[in-house]
Amino acid sequence: MTSRLLPLAAMEKILKKAGASRVSDKAKAALKEVIEEKANELALQAVKFSLHAGRKTIKANDIKLASKE
Amino acid sequence: MTSRLLPLAAMEKILKKAGASRVSDKAKAALKEVIEEKANELALQAVKFSLHAGRKTIKANDIKLASKE
Repeated sequence: MTSRLLPLAAMEKILKKAGASRVSDKAKAALKEVIEEKANELALQAVKFSLHAGRKTIKANDIKLASKE
Repeated sequence: MTSRLLPLAAMEKILKKAGASRVSDKAKAALKEVIEEKANELALQAVKFSLHAGRKTIKANDIKLASKE
């Protein structure tokens, strides 16, 4: 999946902050993909939880609950 | 932590794609925080793995291995 949601430059910054001297382009793309997948999973859970609570608006608590699964 | 690495607009798009009708501002911020934390954890692991392999460059395989932990 190649979306444009998360910037590759941000992936590089995160890796450099973690102590990386150099980061390959494929590593940036890989981190982006893993993170987007995780975000999608969390989002699906959060939507379920909001519907379960009888809401159409996703709130921070839905995200927090989803992140604990 | 309030970094500017991941755009809040992207968090909203991910949640809408997952089926959300509406998304509170705090929910966007919460998703961003959870995702950045996950990204930081993965990055730290990936850096460890690259050093273990005697490299100074982070490669996609380091990220993939970290994501399987």
